[in-house]
Amino acid sequence: MNYHIALIPGDGIGPEIVAEARKVLDRIAEKYGHEFEYQELLLGGASIDATGVPLTDETVAAAKKSDAVLMGSIGGDTTTSPWYKLAPELRPEAGLLKIRKELNLFANLRPAVLYDELKAACPLRDEIIGDGFDMLIMRELTGGLYFGERKTFEENGLTTAVDTLTYNENEIRRIAIRGFDVARKRRKKVTSVDKANVLDSSRLWRKVVQEVAADYPDVALEHMLVDNCAMQLVKNPGQFDVILTENMFGDILSDEASMVTGSIGMLSSASLNDTKLGLYEPSHGSAPDIAGKGIANPIATILSAAMLLRYSLDLDQEADAVEAAVKQVLKEGYRTVDIESEGCAQVGTAQMGDLIVQRI
Amino acid sequence: MNYHIALIPGDGIGPEIVAEARKVLDRIAEKYGHEFEYQELLLGGASIDATGVPLTDETVAAAKKSDAVLMGSIGGDTTTSPWYKLAPELRPEAGLLKIRKELNLFANLRPAVLYDELKAACPLRDEIIGDGFDMLIMRELTGGLYFGERKTFEENGLTTAVDTLTYNENEIRRIAIRGFDVARKRRKKVTSVDKANVLDSSRLWRKVVQEVAADYPDVALEHMLVDNCAMQLVKNPGQFDVILTENMFGDILSDEASMVTGSIGMLSSASLNDTKLGLYEPSHGSAPDIAGKGIANPIATILSAAMLLRYSLDLDQEADAVEAAVKQVLKEGYRTVDIESEGCAQVGTAQMGDLIVQRI
Ligand SMILES: CC(C)[C@H](C(=O)O)[C@@H](O)C(=O)O
Ligand SMILES: CC(C)[C@H](C(=O)O)[C@@H](O)C(=O)O
Repeated sequence: MNYHIALIPGDGIGPEIVAEARKVLDRIAEKYGHEFEYQELLLGGASIDATGVPLTDETVAAAKKSDAVLMGSIGGDTTTSPWYKLAPELRPEAGLLKIRKELNLFANLRPAVLYDELKAACPLRDEIIGDGFDMLIMRELTGGLYFGERKTFEENGLTTAVDTLTYNENEIRRIAIRGFDVARKRRKKVTSVDKANVLDSSRLWRKVVQEVAADYPDVALEHMLVDNCAMQLVKNPGQFDVILTENMFGDILSDEASMVTGSIGMLSSASLNDTKLGLYEPSHGSAPDIAGKGIANPIATILSAAMLLRYSLDLDQEADAVEAAVKQVLKEGYRTVDIESEGCAQVGTAQMGDLIVQRI
Repeated sequence: MNYHIALIPGDGIGPEIVAEARKVLDRIAEKYGHEFEYQELLLGGASIDATGVPLTDETVAAAKKSDAVLMGSIGGDTTTSPWYKLAPELRPEAGLLKIRKELNLFANLRPAVLYDELKAACPLRDEIIGDGFDMLIMRELTGGLYFGERKTFEENGLTTAVDTLTYNENEIRRIAIRGFDVARKRRKKVTSVDKANVLDSSRLWRKVVQEVAADYPDVALEHMLVDNCAMQLVKNPGQFDVILTENMFGDILSDEASMVTGSIGMLSSASLNDTKLGLYEPSHGSAPDIAGKGIANPIATILSAAMLLRYSLDLDQEADAVEAAVKQVLKEGYRTVDIESEGCAQVGTAQMGDLIVQRI
């Protein structure tokens, strides 16, 4: 089949890691008889440099017309990059928030997996790791504090700033359904995270999630307060299968979960809407400090490409092949510097990409 | 001197642990020639059972008249306790939120300390622990999402819920000043945590904190995004001295930090306003599952009493004596079950209290 894939190299290490993912996609196309047509799009800092804004209408239109978007990472060093002297709505991250909204990417899937071979990199003790862990954060991505009304104004001579956290039942229902659907294909457990002892939005969240759960009698549901979840991720990460939560809590908890694995260079993500279209990107940032050095780990982006094959193109077998190749390379002892350990062979970005390609 | 101390035993293990802290205070009074008059007050579940509401005007008035309030812990099992069938504003936690606001307790200090003797209980690997860590979370406690307007309503046939996150510059300034003041007495570093790449309230937060920092040239300030902070607490907790943040972020991060120590039964907290009055309580919850068994760790409450001596009564020497006694008992190898380890002597709640009293 013929597919149109939009590529957003982005900033920092973005272009390097996207190049490797593209090699992997090319190998998949060759092996399985597909044709992938790529179109490079601008977003974030690269877009600011070229056009003055972090996201243009052209990028939005082209992304909408594509079958899927694969992104590197965007943004730069927030203290030294000139992008961060711009007004907030002109900074790289504003482009990312805007494309999420424009493409209606309400469902953000972030797996946090501890690979057997990388246990030593996990910051947690072996007793805590136990049999390991493999969870998926299902984060609502187009609502809540991120997209509510906000304003800064003077009142009685005092500057005051307001952000608004709003959810309606439909926004909650559609992400909850995604959470239960994916849990059904996994270990059949959903932990819904909220702050229902304080927030009205969390009380509505809990009620709607409870209603959705009624349609999934085969999936276990538990509710957990966000502060407790932040503790449990450190105390016993193995207890989680799918964590279902709203936008801001998901931002915090998914980063915590990814660090708990100790291998953030391995973690992919998918942002989906209610069509097949999705945006795929590594969970890590643009790491400007190592950009251009050829040492960045491309695996998170390659695994994001695997998610793209699975979720947007329905190519499960091809996705499996990519994931298997990544596991194989780890097993053979190849490591980029971020996941290196004694007795392993250290390789650079391009070499890691090549090794994976060769195993597909 | 003569001091009036309000005691709120609270729910679950609350009464047991407060009783031990009271013994310790009595010993301090005896040794240093003070007189502590106690008044027991109702809050939370105990108040609901006795009066129908989680906080009465009498409790508020008596707390305001006291020199300081020492609290156990409140609330019960959220799935089985009848308190959680009540409307949200009638549940135990609502009483806690209300007393914070009524007493204007805007500054919540939560130390997260790794005791040398308890390193084995820390879930993090020794390499991550390094030389250990000792941080203080300075959480804003009377603003933000916790106390903004909220409502749930129908709109176009859809139920919608809204919470509001508001801060004015004065609310930020006063907590920032507290953060810098305490950092000055510690390792002179403030990490201000916000989500300034998204929220207006965080951008104002960052601006005001920056202004306050100008008056503390001897204290280093860094800004960190909340998602990054959730990662750094796991990756390298030793980097933090004082973490300064708003209410909801502080709730999540302080719980994460306390779990990172692995000894939540050891962690105290203080909630202060702009007078000497403060409310002191352990960082942990009411642990209804072990209530009445005489095995709860009273140390967090005893250390909260030490904070009370220090911050509300200005009795630094007395506070030091309590803290030294706790360290001594740990050194001698006495442990409650939550912090037990091989070769140590396991003791119950009252025995631990007695051991500490004997060492003052
Ligand atoms: C860059 C930032 C706006 C973004 C977010 O907060 O969503 C990032 O942290 C993420 O998690 O993708
Ligand atoms: C009980 C709850 C309302 C409270 C809070 O969120 O502030 C608690 O979690 C805490 O941190 O003291």
